[in-house]
Amino acid sequence: MLLDRPVLEAIARGAAVLGAGGGGDTGTGLLIALQAIEETAAPQLVQLDDLPADGLLMPCGGMGAPTVSYEKIESGQEGGRLREHVEATFGTQVVAVMAGEIGGSNALTPIAWAARMGLPIVDADGMGRAFPQMDQCAMEVMGISPSPAFLTDERGTVVITHAASGLWLERIERQITIEMGGSAATAEYILTVEQARTATVLGTMSLAIRIGRATQDAADPIAALVAELGAFRLIEGKITDLERRTTKGFAFGTAVIEGVRADAGRTVRIEIQNENLIAKEGERVLASVPDLITVLDSDTGDAVPTERLRYGQRVTPIAFPCAPIWRTPRGLEVGGPSAFGYDFDYVPVEEIHA
Amino acid sequence: MLLDRPVLEAIARGAAVLGAGGGGDTGTGLLIALQAIEETAAPQLVQLDDLPADGLLMPCGGMGAPTVSYEKIESGQEGGRLREHVEATFGTQVVAVMAGEIGGSNALTPIAWAARMGLPIVDADGMGRAFPQMDQCAMEVMGISPSPAFLTDERGTVVITHAASGLWLERIERQITIEMGGSAATAEYILTVEQARTATVLGTMSLAIRIGRATQDAADPIAALVAELGAFRLIEGKITDLERRTTKGFAFGTAVIEGVRADAGRTVRIEIQNENLIAKEGERVLASVPDLITVLDSDTGDAVPTERLRYGQRVTPIAFPCAPIWRTPRGLEVGGPSAFGYDFDYVPVEEIHA
Repeated sequence: MLLDRPVLEAIARGAAVLGAGGGGDTGTGLLIALQAIEETAAPQLVQLDDLPADGLLMPCGGMGAPTVSYEKIESGQEGGRLREHVEATFGTQVVAVMAGEIGGSNALTPIAWAARMGLPIVDADGMGRAFPQMDQCAMEVMGISPSPAFLTDERGTVVITHAASGLWLERIERQITIEMGGSAATAEYILTVEQARTATVLGTMSLAIRIGRATQDAADPIAALVAELGAFRLIEGKITDLERRTTKGFAFGTAVIEGVRADAGRTVRIEIQNENLIAKEGERVLASVPDLITVLDSDTGDAVPTERLRYGQRVTPIAFPCAPIWRTPRGLEVGGPSAFGYDFDYVPVEEIHA
Repeated sequence: MLLDRPVLEAIARGAAVLGAGGGGDTGTGLLIALQAIEETAAPQLVQLDDLPADGLLMPCGGMGAPTVSYEKIESGQEGGRLREHVEATFGTQVVAVMAGEIGGSNALTPIAWAARMGLPIVDADGMGRAFPQMDQCAMEVMGISPSPAFLTDERGTVVITHAASGLWLERIERQITIEMGGSAATAEYILTVEQARTATVLGTMSLAIRIGRATQDAADPIAALVAELGAFRLIEGKITDLERRTTKGFAFGTAVIEGVRADAGRTVRIEIQNENLIAKEGERVLASVPDLITVLDSDTGDAVPTERLRYGQRVTPIAFPCAPIWRTPRGLEVGGPSAFGYDFDYVPVEEIHA
């Protein structure tokens, strides 16, 4: 499949939903991708079977608080520079680009880079969603080494890191990103096509396209989305309290939503670290990581990134199941409630709402 | 010359003086070097003429606030790990180790690493003193590229940075060092023996040895030191006020010294960023970077590192001329008063006290 303008527009809508509020604004990401295919050519979306088993995949994307990505735009050369250093270090060629995370603009910038490099992009990603830390990925869960990892910025700086663990890599690259001004481009957990069969989340670029198409012309886009994803509406309401701070390279915050219409009298609170982490009603957890919580604009059905939530906005947060890998013991260690300091046990969203 | 125990002890005394208060405590550095030569063999001190002109020198040392180096001790493997990545990246062998700075323990840890690697250490360094930032070196002044630069820690993390400038490298590596716990081992401005003829400060390891020997058994070590260095006593007094803070990876501070004996009634204030930067009496500058200001214990004549200054201590700060490269226009840009945010013009210490 050719990732031309209509497909990219569908991906932008779908990736916003799969971002669970994070991964960066898809509006910016879409502009970057459209400009790239205009200046070069639309890249191919390929399946793992289309690629040599021992070929190298380059998972990549942007690092930093999404609040920064509006002001600090990439130069377009980041992907090519990452690839050059990946190939020099590994001594072998990259056969395809992979989105490190399918959520938000991080689904789109790798497509832009693939276009500029003349490489295909693979129908998979590292998370099946967006997560605040880059070590919160399927490759980490499956024991793929995060190192050597590659980071670059719009000035041409390149940093290659061999870290003792994914967490140490995250800590080091986060500090570098902050020093660089709050955003950077990275590639890590470099792996072969063969390894990717079990150590990535497959089919997620197609999923983003399906979501985008399902909602595009729907009379009731929220209903269409709920049906497509098997999602649960958590509340229909408006934002009555909003607190946000960008600190230590992350965007933290809380949104309080008071119910309207059938939900009048109910209050749901969403806690945020780049992404929507948990939704609670009083002390009751309505949904939590690793399941996805996405806040939709009640009027348009569009997914609202956490940094675009605003006081008084009418919203309908939904929740839907994460990729199965996140529900394994190691998956929950890496991306479950305890990874974010919460002390409750994870319950799958479909069991909570059974 | 073989760098055996007596020579290392002389270097420790001399490097403390050349540290201008910084570069890390030579007590710790001496222990590290003594242990290394005990477990392996004393390394050779060599001149540039002893080495092949196109051979690679590895300038290296510790990065971080000296206040941290007492608590966070290196593993001993840092130098070998840096060399391994330098050689893999440059595709050629390192022929000798060089101290990035001759000041403080940073004169001694490269000797320890040289011993463990079975490499000689060259009679030169990058500064002829210690400076807070690693881009404040002769190689930077002479236009040697700081990149690729290498950083490692006691856990085995390795970070290779290609930065747009020495200042960007400093900023990035400083953040990584902070995240690693406040100290790390680095190698940067890798250069050939031929380049080192003009882009380093030559003969500084010998100078440290000479200083150490001159003061070792002197009846009046301060007088011996002043004679050896052509130094100026700024005041003889005691510390009546001391302010210190470790922030952003540096140790900042101020020491106020009130005169005793012949200097009774005078007050000298020293401003610190890892090193002693300037000494003032009222508004009059008595000495400033890039010239060296070293605080001596009035009783023992030992150089006191800035992090060991204490209230009530009887001290005699001295000042002496820096290496000529620092007095060039580009040298003053990199290491002069304006590099530290001061707005006065540099006057050589011997002119101030003429």
